[in-house]
Amino acid sequence: MTKSAVILLSGGIDSTTTLAIAQQEGYAAYALSFLYGQRHRLELEAARNIAERMQVKKHMILRIGLDEIGGSALTDKIRVPKNRTDREMASSIPVTYVPARNTIFLSYALAWAEVLGARDIFIGVNAMDYSGYPDCRPEYIRAYENMASLATKAGIEGHRITIHAPLIQLTKARIIQKGLELGVDYGLTISCYDPDPNGNACGACDSCLIRKKGFAEAGADDPTRYR
Amino acid sequence: MTKSAVILLSGGIDSTTTLAIAQQEGYAAYALSFLYGQRHRLELEAARNIAERMQVKKHMILRIGLDEIGGSALTDKIRVPKNRTDREMASSIPVTYVPARNTIFLSYALAWAEVLGARDIFIGVNAMDYSGYPDCRPEYIRAYENMASLATKAGIEGHRITIHAPLIQLTKARIIQKGLELGVDYGLTISCYDPDPNGNACGACDSCLIRKKGFAEAGADDPTRYR
Repeated sequence: MTKSAVILLSGGIDSTTTLAIAQQEGYAAYALSFLYGQRHRLELEAARNIAERMQVKKHMILRIGLDEIGGSALTDKIRVPKNRTDREMASSIPVTYVPARNTIFLSYALAWAEVLGARDIFIGVNAMDYSGYPDCRPEYIRAYENMASLATKAGIEGHRITIHAPLIQLTKARIIQKGLELGVDYGLTISCYDPDPNGNACGACDSCLIRKKGFAEAGADDPTRYR
Repeated sequence: MTKSAVILLSGGIDSTTTLAIAQQEGYAAYALSFLYGQRHRLELEAARNIAERMQVKKHMILRIGLDEIGGSALTDKIRVPKNRTDREMASSIPVTYVPARNTIFLSYALAWAEVLGARDIFIGVNAMDYSGYPDCRPEYIRAYENMASLATKAGIEGHRITIHAPLIQLTKARIIQKGLELGVDYGLTISCYDPDPNGNACGACDSCLIRKKGFAEAGADDPTRYR
């Protein structure tokens, strides 16, 4: 029997590559995306296209109340910083940090996994390029896994929940190379924190800068439309 | 300076008593409630009345996507079991179990705590009367606390997040006695899984049976309106 897994899919490079890895490992993929705030509607369209093209078993999109809690440039109206140096990005927790975001996302994934009878969850977090996010660190993922195993019926029955974070120690360039090997069409993905209404990327926010550098270092063409 | 805490408030006996305990311990209370599924709208009205009467700093109500995930009598249209014996209740995970519910609730509380700069979260879970729920056990709470401390900026700065579960080892009777000592008006609370549209409790679901027994054992009058 094919094993099922829930994969968090934002529509960016990392989550799309993670989906490709889960499928290559033989999991039937249940993709989970979230609608919150204003800035990410285009990401959601990207996620929809990716889920369809990559033929996931099911794609669930949940509207969640992150905006109401606020506290971040992605959900509040704080200005997204532009043209920061690598050093500036690395030196602090980005203002685009959304409080407890991965914890909330993983918790919905855990709920869906429990309903599906799945014990595997995939998340495309990355500790290399986003070192400022506390919830992208390996020790956080391990602690989440421990908690998740205790939180569920599967745990009571002696099974473990596994949180797969296959990109956690990879550079953006290695992620892109891996995805290209697996046939990912990165033209479907969107990374920009501040795209224009037509989906053209700004080219200057942290996420765009990291993406550009990743493609350059991977020696691959960046299919992104920049404005 | 008064310390702030986020308190999960469902509108039932346990969460209302927990709020009273947090306030007695000197915390400025930020109450958090959730709207999901159809059955709990009356609970939410109860939560609103309680938050107002107990003068919390702020009461946030979040609409969350638990219904779409399903898997439980509280969110699906499965029939709520009635008139079960103590033994039947204790022998299995109740069908009213909502997958990963406490994990999702605590994750929103964690997000709000981070925005508020609070490091304390209160949850009214109870391992005595609800032994069938995996996410009401002390080991689960400790694992959540570890994860939460790693998930947040506070954790990176060396602070711990504390999940207070002051009722976890109390019987329902002791909880009620404690709440009455603190002046809680249990006439404002609702426990029933299956109330009629006027808010009258069914008197026969697990939650009603536990509530009735609790008041009887506490030697106190049950102010609930049963139909």
